[in-house]
Amino acid sequence: MYKNDAVVRPRYAETDQMGVIYHGNYYAWFEVGRSEFFRSLGYTYSRLEKEGIILPVVESSCKYIKPAMYDEEVLIRTRVESQKGIRIAFRYEVLRRSDEELLAEGRTLHAFVGLDLKPIRLKALNPEFRSVLDRIKPE
Amino acid sequence: MYKNDAVVRPRYAETDQMGVIYHGNYYAWFEVGRSEFFRSLGYTYSRLEKEGIILPVVESSCKYIKPAMYDEEVLIRTRVESQKGIRIAFRYEVLRRSDEELLAEGRTLHAFVGLDLKPIRLKALNPEFRSVLDRIKPE
Amino acid sequence: MYKNDAVVRPRYAETDQMGVIYHGNYYAWFEVGRSEFFRSLGYTYSRLEKEGIILPVVESSCKYIKPAMYDEEVLIRTRVESQKGIRIAFRYEVLRRSDEELLAEGRTLHAFVGLDLKPIRLKALNPEFRSVLDRIKPE
Amino acid sequence: MYKNDAVVRPRYAETDQMGVIYHGNYYAWFEVGRSEFFRSLGYTYSRLEKEGIILPVVESSCKYIKPAMYDEEVLIRTRVESQKGIRIAFRYEVLRRSDEELLAEGRTLHAFVGLDLKPIRLKALNPEFRSVLDRIKPE
Repeated sequence: MYKNDAVVRPRYAETDQMGVIYHGNYYAWFEVGRSEFFRSLGYTYSRLEKEGIILPVVESSCKYIKPAMYDEEVLIRTRVESQKGIRIAFRYEVLRRSDEELLAEGRTLHAFVGLDLKPIRLKALNPEFRSVLDRIKPE
Repeated sequence: MYKNDAVVRPRYAETDQMGVIYHGNYYAWFEVGRSEFFRSLGYTYSRLEKEGIILPVVESSCKYIKPAMYDEEVLIRTRVESQKGIRIAFRYEVLRRSDEELLAEGRTLHAFVGLDLKPIRLKALNPEFRSVLDRIKPE
Repeated sequence: MYKNDAVVRPRYAETDQMGVIYHGNYYAWFEVGRSEFFRSLGYTYSRLEKEGIILPVVESSCKYIKPAMYDEEVLIRTRVESQKGIRIAFRYEVLRRSDEELLAEGRTLHAFVGLDLKPIRLKALNPEFRSVLDRIKPE
Repeated sequence: MYKNDAVVRPRYAETDQMGVIYHGNYYAWFEVGRSEFFRSLGYTYSRLEKEGIILPVVESSCKYIKPAMYDEEVLIRTRVESQKGIRIAFRYEVLRRSDEELLAEGRTLHAFVGLDLKPIRLKALNPEFRSVLDRIKPE
């Protein structure tokens, strides 16, 4: 387990009648990973949004390798794949906590926009957050 | 089937590993019933909200009689139980569409408030909608 | 914070366009509380289910006092209200973690049944779990 | 609107605090489209599952072009992209119903497996369904 891994315990509400976690629910887990990633930078997504900047999802994808199961904790390991202009892409791994077996991999692409969903100049609008982003090392 | 019944086809996403619809998901169906109820009055909830009035839920409850199943259509039968001041209570029946067997019964209590979640005087703020509500006959 | 409180961080996925947590999502949080309650007894719900006993919800209800907000942690405080025969009722409090302000209160009533959703004799089928339940003190 | 388009009215439960439909919820809509696609073939997914064949999602993706909004009906237009062995890929378009503006595009890849999540020989196990699939024309 890495320091910045988010821990999620799959809920009964998230299962489906196949007896596994419904595939669409992994995207909310990616959001948990992303949210904890921002927190680890010292700048929560919540604060960003209060300052008038939102980060809607432009693309999302997931590969399902092994099913996640009710009550069996998973880790969400999140990293920034790329940043260019107002676009930022995240990569996620979903790992079973007990043995770190890889269950799924995903990606989301986002754009920094204003509350009106229009593109913004992040550096002009929020230089502090821009400099936080600039310190993220590519992996 | 009554004219104003809302039809919902249960989704796989709404099932859980018991092989039935997850109990918490009935509340979204009540919302569908309520939404169609407003539409049948000729005044959608969406319009109300654009006019600055929202209707948060103050209480909710449900009795589960028989399980709803994936892909087996249900009817949501909605009526106003009571109205007093800024409070309005709805009753819901969830019926299997094929034979109108009763699957669940529920209730929600709401308050008309402004976008700031503070109480409003509905008659002063929106007399047209107030008169729509006044025409609802108690059942 | 009590030892057995479950901590939930509200997800963006759980918000709605009122800017608060959607009322229907509190029921999944009650499930988290219930699940942690069983874990604290040393007998997870997951284990119970693998042994052929499930606990569907027969009734559910919630009173919403103040809205829960995205990213602001809440505690789910769970206790057994009553047990009689195959029925067990739980009470829940949802508290803002930062100041333990009460945000919502809820209740669920359940029946112990077999995988076929038919009533079981818990003591005959699973005396160990029956004795775990018997040790719960009424509050 | 095409004959086989599924109609979905976005629910309040599906919105988030950006005031649009939460991105993760489109995957449940794709499921609605897929489910109606099977129905249009005269062989519901529900029947398939009762016959011991399930169709878990192996990959999923979505591009979000314009936001879907509460209560504004959308069409889910579903087609088979490819079939090979036990794999089947679907493409989806989400269109605003009022003007058929394209809001999102998605894809899911599935594998036909048994209830134990292990690959099956579809032709041997269920020749009737196999021949239904064989009649789908590539688009």
